[in-house]
This record gives sequence, C-alpha cells and structure tokens, in this order.
Amino acid sequence: MSGNSFGKLFTVTSFGESHGAALGCIIDGCPPGLELSVEDMQRDLDRRKPGTSRHTTQRREADEVKILSGVFEGKTTGTPIGLVIENTDQRSKDYSKISEQFRPAHADYTYMHKYGVRDYRGGGRSSARETAMRVAAGAVARKFLEQRLGITIRGYLSQLGPIKIEKLDWEQVDQNPFFCPDVDKVAEMEAYMDALRKEGNSIGARINVVAEGVPPGLGEPIFDRLDADLAHALMSINAVKGVEIGAGFGCIDQKGTEHRDELTPEGFLSNHSGGVLGGISSGQPILASIALKPTSSLRLPGRSIDVNGNPVEVITTGRHDPCVGIRATPIAEAMMAIVLMDHYLRHRGQNADVSVATPDIGQA
Amino acid sequence: MSGNSFGKLFTVTSFGESHGAALGCIIDGCPPGLELSVEDMQRDLDRRKPGTSRHTTQRREADEVKILSGVFEGKTTGTPIGLVIENTDQRSKDYSKISEQFRPAHADYTYMHKYGVRDYRGGGRSSARETAMRVAAGAVARKFLEQRLGITIRGYLSQLGPIKIEKLDWEQVDQNPFFCPDVDKVAEMEAYMDALRKEGNSIGARINVVAEGVPPGLGEPIFDRLDADLAHALMSINAVKGVEIGAGFGCIDQKGTEHRDELTPEGFLSNHSGGVLGGISSGQPILASIALKPTSSLRLPGRSIDVNGNPVEVITTGRHDPCVGIRATPIAEAMMAIVLMDHYLRHRGQNADVSVATPDIGQA
Amino acid sequence: MSGNSFGKLFTVTSFGESHGAALGCIIDGCPPGLELSVEDMQRDLDRRKPGTSRHTTQRREADEVKILSGVFEGKTTGTPIGLVIENTDQRSKDYSKISEQFRPAHADYTYMHKYGVRDYRGGGRSSARETAMRVAAGAVARKFLEQRLGITIRGYLSQLGPIKIEKLDWEQVDQNPFFCPDVDKVAEMEAYMDALRKEGNSIGARINVVAEGVPPGLGEPIFDRLDADLAHALMSINAVKGVEIGAGFGCIDQKGTEHRDELTPEGFLSNHSGGVLGGISSGQPILASIALKPTSSLRLPGRSIDVNGNPVEVITTGRHDPCVGIRATPIAEAMMAIVLMDHYLRHRGQNADVSVATPDIGQA
Amino acid sequence: MSGNSFGKLFTVTSFGESHGAALGCIIDGCPPGLELSVEDMQRDLDRRKPGTSRHTTQRREADEVKILSGVFEGKTTGTPIGLVIENTDQRSKDYSKISEQFRPAHADYTYMHKYGVRDYRGGGRSSARETAMRVAAGAVARKFLEQRLGITIRGYLSQLGPIKIEKLDWEQVDQNPFFCPDVDKVAEMEAYMDALRKEGNSIGARINVVAEGVPPGLGEPIFDRLDADLAHALMSINAVKGVEIGAGFGCIDQKGTEHRDELTPEGFLSNHSGGVLGGISSGQPILASIALKPTSSLRLPGRSIDVNGNPVEVITTGRHDPCVGIRATPIAEAMMAIVLMDHYLRHRGQNADVSVATPDIGQA
Repeated sequence: MSGNSFGKLFTVTSFGESHGAALGCIIDGCPPGLELSVEDMQRDLDRRKPGTSRHTTQRREADEVKILSGVFEGKTTGTPIGLVIENTDQRSKDYSKISEQFRPAHADYTYMHKYGVRDYRGGGRSSARETAMRVAAGAVARKFLEQRLGITIRGYLSQLGPIKIEKLDWEQVDQNPFFCPDVDKVAEMEAYMDALRKEGNSIGARINVVAEGVPPGLGEPIFDRLDADLAHALMSINAVKGVEIGAGFGCIDQKGTEHRDELTPEGFLSNHSGGVLGGISSGQPILASIALKPTSSLRLPGRSIDVNGNPVEVITTGRHDPCVGIRATPIAEAMMAIVLMDHYLRHRGQNADVSVATPDIGQA
Repeated sequence: MSGNSFGKLFTVTSFGESHGAALGCIIDGCPPGLELSVEDMQRDLDRRKPGTSRHTTQRREADEVKILSGVFEGKTTGTPIGLVIENTDQRSKDYSKISEQFRPAHADYTYMHKYGVRDYRGGGRSSARETAMRVAAGAVARKFLEQRLGITIRGYLSQLGPIKIEKLDWEQVDQNPFFCPDVDKVAEMEAYMDALRKEGNSIGARINVVAEGVPPGLGEPIFDRLDADLAHALMSINAVKGVEIGAGFGCIDQKGTEHRDELTPEGFLSNHSGGVLGGISSGQPILASIALKPTSSLRLPGRSIDVNGNPVEVITTGRHDPCVGIRATPIAEAMMAIVLMDHYLRHRGQNADVSVATPDIGQA
Repeated sequence: MSGNSFGKLFTVTSFGESHGAALGCIIDGCPPGLELSVEDMQRDLDRRKPGTSRHTTQRREADEVKILSGVFEGKTTGTPIGLVIENTDQRSKDYSKISEQFRPAHADYTYMHKYGVRDYRGGGRSSARETAMRVAAGAVARKFLEQRLGITIRGYLSQLGPIKIEKLDWEQVDQNPFFCPDVDKVAEMEAYMDALRKEGNSIGARINVVAEGVPPGLGEPIFDRLDADLAHALMSINAVKGVEIGAGFGCIDQKGTEHRDELTPEGFLSNHSGGVLGGISSGQPILASIALKPTSSLRLPGRSIDVNGNPVEVITTGRHDPCVGIRATPIAEAMMAIVLMDHYLRHRGQNADVSVATPDIGQA
Repeated sequence: MSGNSFGKLFTVTSFGESHGAALGCIIDGCPPGLELSVEDMQRDLDRRKPGTSRHTTQRREADEVKILSGVFEGKTTGTPIGLVIENTDQRSKDYSKISEQFRPAHADYTYMHKYGVRDYRGGGRSSARETAMRVAAGAVARKFLEQRLGITIRGYLSQLGPIKIEKLDWEQVDQNPFFCPDVDKVAEMEAYMDALRKEGNSIGARINVVAEGVPPGLGEPIFDRLDADLAHALMSINAVKGVEIGAGFGCIDQKGTEHRDELTPEGFLSNHSGGVLGGISSGQPILASIALKPTSSLRLPGRSIDVNGNPVEVITTGRHDPCVGIRATPIAEAMMAIVLMDHYLRHRGQNADVSVATPDIGQA
C-alpha cells in the first residue's frame, strides 16, 4: 500500500491539501450496524477546529463533514464510509515568495526533493489540516469502541513549553483552550502564550492519551505489537518527535523491581508498562505520551535557501498556531482509537473463539 | 497481513520460539545482484549474541545462520531469501512452575489471555531470542545500503541506568561490552553492572542509532512517514518503551527559533529534526533514540498470580541479561536498516524518474 | 487491508452505493508530474456511461468526475488523488418489495447474510455503478502508461450470447454500441438485443483486453504474478465468472509443441502465453479474456424467498442492462491499466537498476 | 508486500528454489489450539509428490516436511508456523546449456529480464517444486476448516487433453494416478499418456475444485471478493491459464432465466453461480475450474534464442511431467483452502457479532 492508508482491517485512507478543494477519507472495514451520524464526528472536529481561542490560528474553517456512503437509515452497512470536508477559508494570497523558498523546519524542502513539485499553498499535503480527517475517522472508531466495548479514550495537555501540569482532573480538560487538566496552570499557560504570540515565537508541548476499558489480548506480535502500531500512528501526526508508552524514557533508570508491575488477584499494582506487555494489551489502561515540536511558521526571520540554492531570509506571515500541540489532543485520541479499533478486529478475526482460562484482572 | 511481517517492498517475515527447533525468516524483495554470504550476517549476529561478556546472559547460542534460498553463485537473485538459525542451547529444565505462573512485566499473562495457550519454555515467541532474525535480516539491508548508496548505520549505548555518556567516539563502541562510545564511562558501567548482578536486580538503558548518507526523499506521508515507520520498527523491539526522532522530547520546551534547523547553501545549521521533515528524509543524518526497560526476569521475589488467579510469589531463576539494553544496539541498527531499505525501494518505485530541482544539501 | 483497495504501490480505494450521495475513490501512489485533468477521465467514463444506446439501461447518470486533491497547476503532485462523482439520477421509488425479497442471482441474499443489513436501493454497494470509479482511476493509470511507457490498452466485445466475432478491426470498436470489432456482426447483435429486450430476458458476453507495449519484467512471483493479479482484478468486476490469459482454457487440449511460443531473434512466433511467462511479462502483448454472466434483474418472474424465508415470486422492474457485458469493455481496460501500473511501480522499486543482459524481443 | 505472501489474516509466505538447499514457508495467523502434526500435511504432500506413477516425473523427492515453530505440545499456539522441506534429489548435472539458453514457454527469459540473473538449476524459483509448500500450508488451513467448520475441499481432474470425464464419483479420485473421478476414462487416459510419453510431447488438463459446507458471508467486496481472491490464488499456480467460477465461460450464452439460481425455502435450485454472489459465499458449494497448459519441458526440439540473442534449437532432457495438470489437484485444493481460511478470519474480524436475520439455505 502507498502511504496514505492506516490499519489492516479498519483501514483509513485519506486525501486532501490545505488549500485544495476538499479533504476526505475512506473508512473501510467498519462493522455494520453502528448508529452513525455527522454529529458523532462533529464534536471532535470542533475540538480540533482552529480559531476557537486566541491561542490558536485565526484561520476559520467550518470543518463540516459530510457522509457520502456506508451509512443507511442511520446505521453503518459494513461498506466503506466516504467522508468529505470542503475547504472554505482559502484566502487569495500571494504565494510567489513561499513557492520559491524553503521555510526552515517545514516539509517544503523534502516534498520538493521527493516529488519534484509541490502544492505550496498553505503547506499543501504536509499541512496539519489533513488531521481533520484523522479526527473524523477516529470518531467512528471511538463510537464503536465506546458503544460495543465500553472503551473510553481521553487525552490532555501535560506540558506546554516549560509549564508542566501537576494534577489530572478530567473534568477540567474541556473547560479551557489548552485541554489542560490542571486548573491551576491555566492562567500561567495563558500568560505564557500571550507573551509568546507577542514575541512572534512558538513552543513545543506534550500530550498524554489514555484508553480505559481495553480488553486484554489486543496486539499482534512480533512486529504489529499494539505499542508498535501506536508508535506508528502517533509519530505520523504532524510535529510529533517522540512517543512513550507507560513509563517511557523514565524506564531507563528504573530498576527491574521498580518497573515491573506486580499482579495480585485484585489487579496490577502499578502501570509502568502502560497497559501493554509483550506487545499485547493487558487489560490495564493504555498510556501514551507524545512530544510535539514548536510550530515552524514564525514571523521572526530565519536563514534558508531558495529553490536555486541561494541564501534567503524567510519570514512566515499569516495565521499560524504558536503551539501546534494545543490542538493535538483530539488528534492523538483519534489515532489511538483507530489503532485500538483495528487491533480489536484483527484479534477477533484470529482469536475470537479462544476460550480464555486466565483470570481477568486489570486497572492499576 | 498478520503481525510477523515488516516492510512493504523489502519484507521481513519471521518465525521461531526461544526453545523451539529453530528461528527463521524470509526476506522478500531484496534486489538481485547483491553479493551475500553468511559472513555478512554473522558479524552482526555475533555482536548481538549472548554470552560474550559477564554482563549479558550466559546462555550460549552459536547463532549460526544458514541461507536456504535466494542466493545463487554468491549473489542474491531477487527471489525470497530463506534464513534459519537452529536453537542449540535448549537445556532440559523443569518448567512446571513457570507454566503455572505469570511472571510480572512478562508477556506470560497477555499471551495466555490472547491465545489461550502458550509455549512457556524460555518465553516462547515473546522471548528476545527472535531478535536474532531481525539482526540477520537487517544485515542484508545494511549491506545493500552501504554498497549501493553509501549509507552507514551505527548505534551506541547512550545511557545505562543513571550513567549517561558525555562524548561520542565511534571508535570505542565495539571496544567494550556495552557498545559505549565514551571510554571514560566504561569502568563505571562495569562496576554498576557487577553490583546490580550481585543484587539480583536489573536496569534500563538508552540506545541511539544514526544513519548517515541517507538521500533526501525517503518516506511516504501521511501515514507511512519515515519517522512513523521508524517508530513502529523500533517500538516493536522487545522492552522498548519510548522512541525519539531528533530532538525528541527535548522539543517540548524548545522555542521555534531554537528548534528549526536553518538552511544555508552549505547545508543545515543544526539537526533537531533528526533528518526527517514532514515525514521525509532531508539528507541530514537520521537520528533515533530508544528507551529499554529493565529486564523482567529477576531472582528477587515479586508478587503475582497463578493461572487459577491465586496469589503467588515469583522468583525467576536461570540465565538472564540484567540489562537487555546492552545487546539492543545491533537490533536497533538492524531495524533502522530494514526501514530505510524498504523506504528506498518504495520511493524508487514511485519517484524513480523525478528530476529533482532542489539543491542537494545535507549534514548538520 | 479491508476489501475496497486494490494495488500495492498504485492503490485505488473506492466507496459509494448505487443510490447514495456520491461515489468516490482515492488513488494513492500516482507518480508526480503527470498532466491530469477531468477530461482524461471523462472519455472513458462516457464510454461506460449508461443510456448511450437503446441496448443499455436508460438510467441517466452524468458521471461527471471531480478532482478534489493531488493535482496542482494541472499536474499530479505525488499525493493522493481524491475523486468524486455525485449521483444525480436517484428516482424516488417504492423499495418496499425489494427490501423484503432476495432477487435470484443478486447479492441481496449474501449481503444480508454477511452484514445483517443492506442498502437495498438499486443494489447498494453491490451495484455495478461502483465500476464508474474503476474507470476513472484506470484512466489515470492509462494516461501514465501511454505517456511515459507507450503502453496502449484496448478492449472489445468478442462474443454476445451465441454471436461470436470473426474479425478484429480496432477501428470499428468505438463505432457501435457494443464495442464490437467486427462490423459484419453488428446488425446481428442489434437484432438479437432487440428480441431479447422484448422477451424481457438477458444474456452473457465475452470481453477481450489487450495491452501492447508492455515491457518485459512486470510481475512478482510466486503469488503476485502478473497473470494472478490480472485474474484478481478482472474477476472482481461485477458479473465476471471466468478469466483467461492467452490460450486460456484452449490450452487444455494443446500439446506442448503447439502451445509453447517459440523464440527467434526477431521475436516470439506465437502468443499462446498471452504475454506472461512464469508470472512475468515477456514483452509480448498481454491478452486477457473474461466471461460476464447475463444480468440478473429480469421482468420475467423467478422463484425466490423473502427475508422471512417464505417463497415469493420476484419480478424486477426498472431500468436494467439486458447485457451487462456490453458496458464492461472500458471497465476491463481500466482494471488492466491499474494492474500494469501497480506492477510497473513495484518492479521499478525492486529492480530499477538491473542491467538487463537479455535480448529485447517481443511481438508475436 | 513483496510477491511471495498470500492472504491478509492467514498469511502464507514462501521461499525456495527447485535445486536449492530447501523449500520453506511461514504460516502467520493460524488460530491457536488446532491439533497439528506433520502427518496432517504429509498426506497431501504425498498426493502431490512426484514419482508415484509412470505418468509423472521420475524425480524422487521425499517431501518430508518439518515443523520448526508455532506448535507446542501438539497444538498451534497462534504464533507463526515455520515449515521446511529439504531438497534431497539434487542430481549433479551439466547446466551449461540451460544456463545459456531460454527454453520456450519457460520463465527463463522473463526471470533473466526481470532480475538480470537466475538460478537456472531445474527452473530455480519458477519451478513447480515450490507448490509443495502451498500444499503443506493448505493442509493446515484444510484441517482448521474441516475440524472447526465442517468444510470439505476436494478436487479432481475433469479433462486430460481431449479426454473429458462424464461422471463424478468421488470414491474413484484417489484410486488412480490421475485424480480422475470417472473410472471408465482411466484406461483411456493411461493409453493416452503412454503414447504421449513415447512421442516426447506433453498435454494440458482441467482441474475442478469443490468446497462444501462453506458458510454464507465470506468475501470482502468490492476488490477482495471471494471469487476474485480465488482467481488470484488459482491463477498463481504454475501453468494455469484460466479460472472459472461456477458456470464460468459457459455463462456467455446463457440467458438470465437459465443462469439465475432460483431460491426456495429448501435451498437454491441450481448452482451456476458456483457458490458466490456479489463476491460473497452463498452457502452453496464453491465451484472452481482451472486450465493448465501442457508442460514446456520437451525433448522434441524447439526454436529459441540464447542469452546473446542468437538462434538455438532447444531440447530439454531430464525428468519432467508430461502433464503438469495431473499433480495439480492437491495444489488447487490447497489454494482454495488458504483462500477460504483467510476469508473466514477476515469475515470474523469484522462481522463476528452480526446477528443474521436471513434464512439459512444452501446446497443446490
């Protein structure tokens, strides 16, 4: 398969450029009989949507998704679900400069090198705009997982530049523009972001995602382990530079006696594994954490070259997120949903009739 | 595809359990005309092999690989390469305990839950023993990449528990049992490991891998980005809990002006991206770093349950690595080689005749 | 992958039901730099389109395709090409009967059994209407193959029920509503179809497809042979019940001396192989032939059962092709184009730098 | 994936050349808990084995399969099953001629053109010897299908050159060297083959395969229809030039009223569809028929060219089947088993919990 599909049995294939006519995707392999409407997707799309606070880009996209197939009389039919979002906010703009220059830390240089041509309007295919379709597709997976299996997937911002959260209150996450679960840090984040915007600079962030209620048994060793597929899915999100499962890099200086999650008849005593053992879900919450780099589009000048190899000074004007990490929470949730959905179907295909003799324990 | 294959055009499919008759793999898609002999694989197999110092498991496996197909008159023919390594050190042992208990932080519980049955001898399929085949397959990729494209892939241990290296001297890496590039840290590591072994405990580690000479253009956005496939490949290695590309988690508190790698006609001025922009190689060195958890097999007792759900105290005797990270360097190199090989072929399939107008720059 | 994608490097993924909002597909893996416009697809779409003569269904679909992505300034960019065709002729109709009954030889029974639900309007996903997207995607492949490699792909009707053609005049194929290359048979076919329509019955057909200019070397044994992938592609077209390559079933009573295509320095002396030896193209024309069953939608009553298992008499009214084979020529051409395109890219990925020592011969 | 894997969830990947060290395959995705031993495979391997009558090649291969992994205490564990068959009858022979010439109707020319190199000993990878691994893998699928689902798969020779069978008596199939189900034709076939062998020529054949007990619902439209995957699988067998499902090419001159299989509460009234409607199994027997070309290795001289493009006269000596079709029956059965197994798992993955409201009917 070419590179725009994800998943083996629950397969999402996507298309669309930032300033093209539309974005779209095909969800192939959604089981039949799931109640599905655009509202199911719109909630998450709205959470990802730009322009909802002064801390994100002021580009305004309605991000209204249309279902073109695969749903009949309000339910999925088992046939592919075609989705499309029309691009509406395509300001006419002078692209002559951007078409001639390679913006530092952007995909301009590599796309040009790979394909010999690029759609430079708004970053084209390399724009984070494509993540809208991930969110739409993830919403379908999420609905199935919630309704049929009782799995919930939630994410939050755990670090914004130097500011780390100190407590996790799920109630708070959707109450502020940062998906921050620590209400005491919100004002600090707001001030930080205001200063950053004024400065013309950008900053990185860390997002955590948690899936609860995942049954044990998902994951297909040795290459398609659940954690490996999660790493693939999460690292494929624009701007992500690191992925951790459970203790992540913290495990380096853990001793074995500290890291190993002991089991009791009542459940695991800790969750350093992040809910995955040997590449297979253990029944504990799946814990993933990702690092997102600072936005590359800055109005502060940077050195670069033009298409002829001559040195230029690049200034990126326009409407950009000073912290792409902020809007990444629903995207990371969506990718985790897609991975779990796919692995649920794969597991069920090959092991549906396994009679499990192991005691069913779980939560740390 | 089921879960034991990796790669789209250069595809490695593997089989084998720790204490089964043999391990093996099929490399499908290796281009024809590559000179190949067992010696090409044996070098890396020997680097991964257990029992080469007192700091790794004393299990003794010859790890002698046989080529069963795909090579004729010393050269690959383009047909699948069948490889096999016979297991020789299968001590008869009493497995009655291990077959009844779930060792903490092991795959015992999840394999049993997934499959309803498990080969408990030495961890069966979940044993790191399978990584021998990754190394063998990686050696084929590595040879092609080196000979045809001048790409070199090298790894090193950058942290052993609390001990971080402070300098990178490639000459040192193969001169000590840790793949440590900082000669000044070797004695400290030796002392640390000796104490750890005495204590009966284990420790985590960090491995870095670097690919130099990678041409720009490899990677297939948006899902099969080069960094996403690397994350998949590296996270699929036993015990890995985190993957970073370039600045990795360090990017969280970087500002945009700091993180962005500026370009000049002479090349990039830094390499925070780790050689990947927009999911496509930039021509800079590819930088990846992984965290490996401490070995789970400990002779220090831990709480667990047996197959009937009753509490038990688990003690794991036998020959185990107190730091699985130590032997992971050649494995990580192998997985990076396989990913680059696969992406080189994929890129060539679709973009072989692209006439690249972009200036060819590179090294940071 | 789920079942709605075809091809490994040139991948077509499709969605859409007969009476849904729209049909669409994503072409992933088209090389960059190919000039592409809707006109390139419209020609073949119009050849497949219903309602162009009295011998096909009178349903009227404009079949106007829109390009939503992947093309910039008139050329492909290497990113996925999103295509969509809106359904316009969705007559409001009483579906109460069809929703309760299983029409004989239709997919009604099997879709219901598989998915537990079905979109019964016009056959839903099982309708041949989806083949419009195959034709659109095939047109992209065809353009590449023609422009870059000089490959031409042409099909024709070689048998309509009892009427077999006796000569092959390519000029005639697009001059009659049957894609019949034998002008002497056209009147006979017209009379036959008129009688059939009057009778309320339907009939089968045979279509041949020929690709000329295919370079030797395409095909990936042992499973993804070129002929095996062609068989997959062609058998996946609605109503196809048989596929032949070259001599096809005629080879059963051929002796070896008769079947083997002898070679001379000037080329092969015959083409019983149909251009494929050992699963790899030989440089000769690729010859495929398919059998299409008679349309199942008849106004002549047939025995069946309803969803409760009770016997019913089914009469299918509405606008149907009395011979689905007639419109299948452009579809078969499209599928052959997609297969050749995919195999060209796959071959190029793995063997692009093979220096071929074999003499280059070809045409029979 | 490269071309030596078949199946999405039940995946068979194969390696090995005719005169290499060994043949082997990996079966990935076999559900756990299936009792499996070499005997289960040996029965079918022996049916395919050369040298069992004077009508097949006198090459003697023991074809003894070894299980290297994936089976523990007599049962599959859900991990990949590694199989290997060592080549034992590798006569030292003078290959100088064959290495310089392209035998007509062989893969010599195309392999050389594709790869630039070839293992010419006994046809290398293009030899039908690889089908031994198909049979071994198919036996695993077959055992699962029989034990768990009550599916039986049986094949027979329905035509040998000009001789067509007139009756189908399953009891006879394994009673003669031809897999001929019509006892009255056996003597005629023996005489025909004796004359053919004396003449030094070869002949084609037709094989039919029938799967009974297949539940409705298997197949993944629109591209991975059950019939399309069967066509892929069967056309990938060496020497196959045509594939039919159900009525096959016979449907061309059938009218709709004749072809459509009417349904009654007691079942279908005929089976022209061959058990597949809309690409999904209907519960009726699956019927497939294939055409195999005459063996290309003849001692009767034929015109060809050498590697320098000069004309040569080729005579193929050695031990060859005068009718490759004879031994193809177990191979065709195996491929059908693999396809059904894979589709059973795929269906179960996505539709396992569909509550089917349709009446369950079946046999014609």
